Amino acid sequence: MDVDFDVKHGLEGVAVAISSISYVDGKKGELVYRGFSIEDLIKNSNFEETAYLIWFGSLPNENELDFIVSMLSKKRELPEKIINIMRLFPKNSHPMEVLRSVVSILGMYSGENNSTLEDAINLTAKIPTVIAYWYRIKNNMPIIHPREDLKHSENFLYMMFGEISQYSELFDKTLILHAEQGMNASTFASTVTASTLTDTYSIITTAIGTLKGPLHGGANERVLKMFEEIKSVDNVESYINALIENKNKIMGFGHRIYKTYDPRAKVLKEWIKELFLKENVEYFEIALKVEEYVLKKFENRKIYPNVDFYSGILYNFFNIPKEFFTTIFAMARIIGWTAHSMEYCKNNRIFRPRSIYNGPKNFKYKEYKRS
Amino acid sequence: MDVDFDVKHGLEGVAVAISSISYVDGKKGELVYRGFSIEDLIKNSNFEETAYLIWFGSLPNENELDFIVSMLSKKRELPEKIINIMRLFPKNSHPMEVLRSVVSILGMYSGENNSTLEDAINLTAKIPTVIAYWYRIKNNMPIIHPREDLKHSENFLYMMFGEISQYSELFDKTLILHAEQGMNASTFASTVTASTLTDTYSIITTAIGTLKGPLHGGANERVLKMFEEIKSVDNVESYINALIENKNKIMGFGHRIYKTYDPRAKVLKEWIKELFLKENVEYFEIALKVEEYVLKKFENRKIYPNVDFYSGILYNFFNIPKEFFTTIFAMARIIGWTAHSMEYCKNNRIFRPRSIYNGPKNFKYKEYKRS
Repeated sequence: MDVDFDVKHGLEGVAVAISSISYVDGKKGELVYRGFSIEDLIKNSNFEETAYLIWFGSLPNENELDFIVSMLSKKRELPEKIINIMRLFPKNSHPMEVLRSVVSILGMYSGENNSTLEDAINLTAKIPTVIAYWYRIKNNMPIIHPREDLKHSENFLYMMFGEISQYSELFDKTLILHAEQGMNASTFASTVTASTLTDTYSIITTAIGTLKGPLHGGANERVLKMFEEIKSVDNVESYINALIENKNKIMGFGHRIYKTYDPRAKVLKEWIKELFLKENVEYFEIALKVEEYVLKKFENRKIYPNVDFYSGILYNFFNIPKEFFTTIFAMARIIGWTAHSMEYCKNNRIFRPRSIYNGPKNFKYKEYKRS
Repeated sequence: MDVDFDVKHGLEGVAVAISSISYVDGKKGELVYRGFSIEDLIKNSNFEETAYLIWFGSLPNENELDFIVSMLSKKRELPEKIINIMRLFPKNSHPMEVLRSVVSILGMYSGENNSTLEDAINLTAKIPTVIAYWYRIKNNMPIIHPREDLKHSENFLYMMFGEISQYSELFDKTLILHAEQGMNASTFASTVTASTLTDTYSIITTAIGTLKGPLHGGANERVLKMFEEIKSVDNVESYINALIENKNKIMGFGHRIYKTYDPRAKVLKEWIKELFLKENVEYFEIALKVEEYVLKKFENRKIYPNVDFYSGILYNFFNIPKEFFTTIFAMARIIGWTAHSMEYCKNNRIFRPRSIYNGPKNFKYKEYKRS
C-alpha cells in the first residue's frame, strides 16, 4: 500500500477554495451571504435582489435591480421543442430526473460564447418553469405559461396552481434561506465539474444529480414521509422509539457543519408557528412533538433539527407534492452553485486528487486466466 | 480570514479514497488495472473482459465472460421514445451535450431498485448506441440498429458506418486504454455525486459533463484541430514557435500524474506507426514532427505527449469526426466511473469540504442599500 498520504474521507476539514460568498458559523448557528446575515436578508430583501448580491458581491442599486429583475422575468419561457420533449417523458419520472434532463437539453439552446453569468440567469429564470410544467404535464393538466409582470416566486406559484398566492412572499423567503450554504456536496461536485472549464449546463446538471441523493437534498421529502407515517401526535413516541431500536436514522436531524440549532430551521419554525395561528398547517404539531422528544432522548449529544425538518411542512402547506420538494431546493440553490463556479474559475485549478492503492500490482494475464 | 486550514488548490496530493481499481506510477509511466498492466491487457484481453475485471476485481471465467458479453449485447437498443426525443434535438448540438442529456433521460426508464452494477451494464451497452444514432441523425442518415451477434467495438463501428471494420480490434484496444485512470476530474466529480447515494444516471451525467471540459476530455479534439491548422510538416516549427511566443498552450503535452512518457501515448504511437506502413494515416507525420520539435524545445522540462496527442489521429483514421472524440473517451471510461462509485459507496462518507472565507461579516442591509 502507498503510505505517502492519509485519506481525507469525505474531505472533512479540508479546505478546497478561498471564497467570499458565504460564511457559516456552525457553533453559533450563523449563516451570512456576502456579509449580510440571512435574518437581515429575509427581513429586507427578496429572491431577485439576493441573487444579485450573491452573484455580484454587493447589493444592487435601483438600475441594477431593475436589470436583474427584467432579465429573470424575460427568460422564463422554454423553447417549444423542449415542451414537446417533456411530453414524451414517462409520466412517473421523478421531478429531479426531469429537471436534470431538461437543464442538460437547455445547454443545446445556449449560445456558445455565453458567459457563465448569462447562463446562470437563463437557468435561474427557467428552472421554475421546468418544475411547474412538469407538475402540470405529469398530472394531465394544461401548462400555464409564465407571466412577465409577476415576481419570481409569485410567478412560480402561479404557473403551478393558476392563481396568485397570498403567501408568495413567504415562499420567496424560503428561497432566500436555501440560496447558498458553502461547499456542500452539490456545490462541491459542481465546482469540480466547473474546474475542467466545461459549460454551465454541465455544471448545473452535476449539481442537480448530486442534490437528488437521499443524503443531501432528498432529505425533506423523507421527513414529510416520516410525518405522514406518524399520522398523529399520539404516535410520535412509539414511532421514534422504534426508529432508535432498529438503529434507523431519524430524518431531519443533525448537520455536518451546524453543531447547534440550524439558523434556517429556526426561522422556518417561527414562520410556521405564526402561520399556524391563522391557517391549518398539516404536520406542524407532529413536528413539534418529534423535535421535543428527540431533543430529550439525545439530550447530551447536541442533535438539533436541520432546515429539512421544517421546510417540507411549509412546501406541503403550499400544496407542493413531496416528490417536488427537492426541485424547490434546486430552484433556490442554483444561485450558490453558479456563484461558486464563477468564483472558482477566476483562479482555476482542475481537481485531480489521489487515491491510495491497496490492490495487487504484478499479475500476469496468462497466469490468472481461468476457464 | 479564517486561518484554520490551508487551501488544497485542485486537491493536488490529497488522497480522497482507498482504492484497488487502478494504480498509476507517474514516474515510471505505468498504468495497472486490478493488478494487470495495460500492456498485458491490450495484448491478451478485450473490452468486455476488461470491463468485468475492473468492475469485479478479477478476470472472469468462461461463464462469467459469457454473462457479461450477453448482457452488454442485449441491452444495446434504446427505447423508441428516446430515439424520437433525439430527433427533436437541434442538429448542431455537441455530441457530448446529447450524450449527457440522453444518459439523464435513460434514468427515467430504469427500475427504481436497480443495483449500480445493473445500471452500469445498461449504460455501458447503450452509450455506443447513443453516439452512433446521434452521428446518423445529425447527418440526416437513417439510424442503424445494433446487432447482438457483434462484439462491443465491432457493433459500434457497424452502427456508425454500416460495415464491419477490419480494424475493430484496434479500436477495441483503444477502449481498454481509456477505461480507467484513477481519480481524475470526471471520476472524482462523479464520486462526489455518488456520495449522496443518488442514482447511477446522475453519477454518469456528472462524469460526462465534467469530461466535456477542454481541460479534460475535450483535449484530443483540440489536438486534431491543431494538426489541421498546421496542415503540413513544413509548417510545424513556425506554428509551434508562434504558440510559444504568444504563450499559448501546446495541446496534448504534459500530465498531472505522468512525469515521463504516458504509457497510453506510447502504445498508441506504436500502433499508428504499424498502421502507417499499410495505410494512409492522416496527420501522423505532422504529429511526429511536433513531438520531436516540442521535446527539443523543452528538453529540460520533461514534457511528453499524453494520450490525447495520439488518440485523435487514430479516431480520425476510423472516420470519426473530431467533435465525437470525447464521446469515445466516455464510452470507455464509463467502466472506471462506475467502478469507483461502487467502491466508494461500500464505505461511503458524503463529501463536505470547507472553503476559507475571506469576505465581510457584519454588514447591515439598511446601511448598505443604495438607491
